Amino acid sequence: MDRRSFLKTAGLGTGAAAASSLATPALSQNRIQITCVTSWPKNFPGIGEAPERFATLIDGATDGRITMKVYGGGELVPPLKCNDAVQEGTAQMYHSADYYYQGKLTGYSFFCAVPFGFMPAEIDAWIQKGGGQELWDEVGGQFGIKHLPGGNSGSQMGGWFNKKMQTVDDFKGLKMRIPGFGGDVITALGGTSVTLAGSEILPALQSGTIDATEWVGPWNDLAFGLYKVAKNYHYPGFHEPGSLLSFGISRPFWDGLSESDQTLMTAIAYAVNNETLSSYNTHNGQALKTLVNDHGVELVEFSDEIYREFGKAAKDVLDKAGNSDPLTKKVYEAFLDFRAKAVDWTAISDQSYANKRALTPFA
Amino acid sequence: MDRRSFLKTAGLGTGAAAASSLATPALSQNRIQITCVTSWPKNFPGIGEAPERFATLIDGATDGRITMKVYGGGELVPPLKCNDAVQEGTAQMYHSADYYYQGKLTGYSFFCAVPFGFMPAEIDAWIQKGGGQELWDEVGGQFGIKHLPGGNSGSQMGGWFNKKMQTVDDFKGLKMRIPGFGGDVITALGGTSVTLAGSEILPALQSGTIDATEWVGPWNDLAFGLYKVAKNYHYPGFHEPGSLLSFGISRPFWDGLSESDQTLMTAIAYAVNNETLSSYNTHNGQALKTLVNDHGVELVEFSDEIYREFGKAAKDVLDKAGNSDPLTKKVYEAFLDFRAKAVDWTAISDQSYANKRALTPFA
Repeated sequence: MDRRSFLKTAGLGTGAAAASSLATPALSQNRIQITCVTSWPKNFPGIGEAPERFATLIDGATDGRITMKVYGGGELVPPLKCNDAVQEGTAQMYHSADYYYQGKLTGYSFFCAVPFGFMPAEIDAWIQKGGGQELWDEVGGQFGIKHLPGGNSGSQMGGWFNKKMQTVDDFKGLKMRIPGFGGDVITALGGTSVTLAGSEILPALQSGTIDATEWVGPWNDLAFGLYKVAKNYHYPGFHEPGSLLSFGISRPFWDGLSESDQTLMTAIAYAVNNETLSSYNTHNGQALKTLVNDHGVELVEFSDEIYREFGKAAKDVLDKAGNSDPLTKKVYEAFLDFRAKAVDWTAISDQSYANKRALTPFA
Repeated sequence: MDRRSFLKTAGLGTGAAAASSLATPALSQNRIQITCVTSWPKNFPGIGEAPERFATLIDGATDGRITMKVYGGGELVPPLKCNDAVQEGTAQMYHSADYYYQGKLTGYSFFCAVPFGFMPAEIDAWIQKGGGQELWDEVGGQFGIKHLPGGNSGSQMGGWFNKKMQTVDDFKGLKMRIPGFGGDVITALGGTSVTLAGSEILPALQSGTIDATEWVGPWNDLAFGLYKVAKNYHYPGFHEPGSLLSFGISRPFWDGLSESDQTLMTAIAYAVNNETLSSYNTHNGQALKTLVNDHGVELVEFSDEIYREFGKAAKDVLDKAGNSDPLTKKVYEAFLDFRAKAVDWTAISDQSYANKRALTPFA
């Protein structure tokens, strides 16, 4: 999905003027208060729960010595201005998806999700143990920001279509709500990519203004009610195979923390990262059952032919984006190198096992 | 693998007698010292690094208020007696794999790994958000133990074989080092399962005393040198598709902790859980490349025919084990219920994506 779709409808709160110079920790008897802006409506399932979980854990683990106030998108700053807000010192921290900030540096997208990119366990490996964190910090460093992993929304679905997509030709003239690099792929196949606010998607799909839309996965899509206007639920999504969410922390704030508080925040970010993916996987599994059994949704797998065309177009899109500037190029090359090893390992581990496991009915 | 293989060679240290009544926190000026026994040699790659990482994080996050001393297997108690040690108060905490304790309750295995069971993201989802934690605590509660996730060794390989396994008949008479439920499956196919200490595996494979052995995955297997005596590296492993490691904490110790320290320990366990899997995935990806490119190892995929027989036998083995006692039955039924939903979601998300992604060469 592109979360900016529903984000654009969120207004700006009146609190922005009141917040200033927060980049320095508010220390009082060693107490620290963190202002965290986010790109999500307050407590939005999954993505919006992640920063709240961070707040609960850091408050709980320090017995209230460190507290964090989480602002929904638009309450303090506009939903897609979180990175700016932390850079400028309006907040010490944000929770967002870093592909929103590809306008600041194209390379940011590789730390969230790109077409034909990493699945959740693969991007975790890259970030945590494969050199990704250092590059992420280098990218964030351009804007005075330290990054930590903040959860993963899991593999996304391919989207809801008015008809079954059977050949590549079906994409010619298709009007699909799909933003960013994913939208560029649809355009390359002869379709039109459209960006719509969340509230506009359902009526647009119903009226035929658009023929298709992607959103997230079964959990969020069920809640959104997309099954009411389109029954063909396509998979797998090529555009966001495992979107890593991001905590972005003001570098001056981070550098002012004690080493122990840095350690604590890192551990909590990793915990939230783990839990958020678990939450998506749990809810997606349950919601999928509901969609199919209770709402008559039909699961349609994209054909190999279609996927090959997705892949070719995605490679072109990434090659172009990955060479935008020297730092992005450095990130892109590291991404490609780790991707090759990750793909080979996935192929003979989880992927092969899942395929073979499916040969034996078990229930 | 069965880590008890190398564990049996580890002797008992002399420290056991010195440790007693540690189940009550050693409080001094609010300081807490935790004794953690493990089933691994000190700092053994991956599994042995996880408890050390916990120690580093808890020491770091509390600025030394809470410290943890990690004992390698056999230093304080025998490697496979960690659960007993915590139950009896010899240590406050252990890091181990809970299928070692299936002798105490068969159901313990479902919280680590069983044939045709969960992959890493699936067991995380079950434990963290799908009701698994409550059942794990109920099982542990029988022995006065609170559990937390402690990492995952990732999908394991099918093993090293003297010849390529091409049909089910090839398993008749096969002598394979593979313990536990996995060994029962090999036996069901007409083979013989053998348990050997780690140091005995290489010579046994070389001399023909055994025809095959499984161990872990590329990272640990490369270090172990198994490629020197067998070149046919089979995949995927059916027996341990994502072994969850376990922190087992003395219940009286846990109950005596402040709520904030409980929160802290939970967050750190989740962080370690996340990082350990990332470490395996990173190292496995790199080691796989080395094994194939530098050591001429041949990757051999088990045929569908063989895997179907693995599956049928595994179902029988689990059905029998899962009905051992009322609590295990409760666990087994919850496992089967979550497994059905997890398998369906994996099928249309990571699994389908990985298969389609492979259609487009990217490097």
